[in-house]
Amino acid sequence: MSSALLDELIEGLRCLPGVGPKSAQRMALHLLQRDRVGAKHLGSLLVQAMDTVQHCGQCRIFTESPLCRWCSDPTRNAGHVCVVESPADVLAIDKAADYRGRFFLLLGHLSPLDGVGPKDLGMDLLEQQLANGSIEELTLAINPTLEGQVTARYIIDLANKYTVPVLQIARGVPLGSELEFADSTTLSVAFAERSRLN
Amino acid sequence: MSSALLDELIEGLRCLPGVGPKSAQRMALHLLQRDRVGAKHLGSLLVQAMDTVQHCGQCRIFTESPLCRWCSDPTRNAGHVCVVESPADVLAIDKAADYRGRFFLLLGHLSPLDGVGPKDLGMDLLEQQLANGSIEELTLAINPTLEGQVTARYIIDLANKYTVPVLQIARGVPLGSELEFADSTTLSVAFAERSRLN
Repeated sequence: MSSALLDELIEGLRCLPGVGPKSAQRMALHLLQRDRVGAKHLGSLLVQAMDTVQHCGQCRIFTESPLCRWCSDPTRNAGHVCVVESPADVLAIDKAADYRGRFFLLLGHLSPLDGVGPKDLGMDLLEQQLANGSIEELTLAINPTLEGQVTARYIIDLANKYTVPVLQIARGVPLGSELEFADSTTLSVAFAERSRLN
Repeated sequence: MSSALLDELIEGLRCLPGVGPKSAQRMALHLLQRDRVGAKHLGSLLVQAMDTVQHCGQCRIFTESPLCRWCSDPTRNAGHVCVVESPADVLAIDKAADYRGRFFLLLGHLSPLDGVGPKDLGMDLLEQQLANGSIEELTLAINPTLEGQVTARYIIDLANKYTVPVLQIARGVPLGSELEFADSTTLSVAFAERSRLN
């Protein structure tokens, strides 16, 4: 490029996921031409957020305080813990369900091939809370994938060690969907877990 | 989200072109989880670049110095000026062609509907250089689109006012392409501008 700093900026933008050399160049030129104010604001937000946003000490949700807003909410039942894989899952559940307990965020799933072990998912923190009796009931809201099931199995074993009950959110055909488009695994689970209506 | 600063960061990332709410969320969480060092570096680069990268006073190319490296290169012929639409075009020509003049960067094309007039493209700066005799020859390397042609027409009129010769880079079938896949406009231009070989 025409300027050393511009080259550095283009290279720096590539730390964003899904941004290659061409998009990085397009982004840098766009910001310089059209949105210098927004870009400077983004720059200071990045520095500030990376310095101050940490994990909640109890549930690993991203927060600036020692405890996140769910863990520090006295109206929530701290003994009920819902285990999820990603921050987006926390928001989805919080928006949709009448859940009044707290969360535990794994930030991923067990994946030995990618070098993700129990410690990376905070399993030691979870075990600590299971051991000291602060968890009365675990609800697993882990993605119904193969890796998710392996991760769930690991948590069930942990909970069994301390005889804490584990629940799983219901699996079946999604509401508003049409049966002919449901995949066969979902349909077979939905049949196996059918419930009586009368 | 779980933290006010994280919300702000997600909102801030949306100033990047092509980044909607979902990608902004994915980017913010990715940086917090996996690349805090890179993100902080990007943050300070953004602030620094927006403050110090300006336009070359002669040709509008992005640079930190008063003149860009092409305009300040004494081995280049300052009387030959190649007009381009985007910084990427400058780099492409610099890499491919044996061009030894300098550039003039429009940073766009005339587009009255989007509110882009001659002044936004630096036409006053170009006219000033045409008027004071510092340009001996203009070469247009403007995109062969409708807007590009309108912009070229405007520049030709300017140059005529000061009787400066204007050249245009050759248009025709691209090398290495197959004729059957060339569009009809390109083919008809290539026929109209055919040259004698013997």
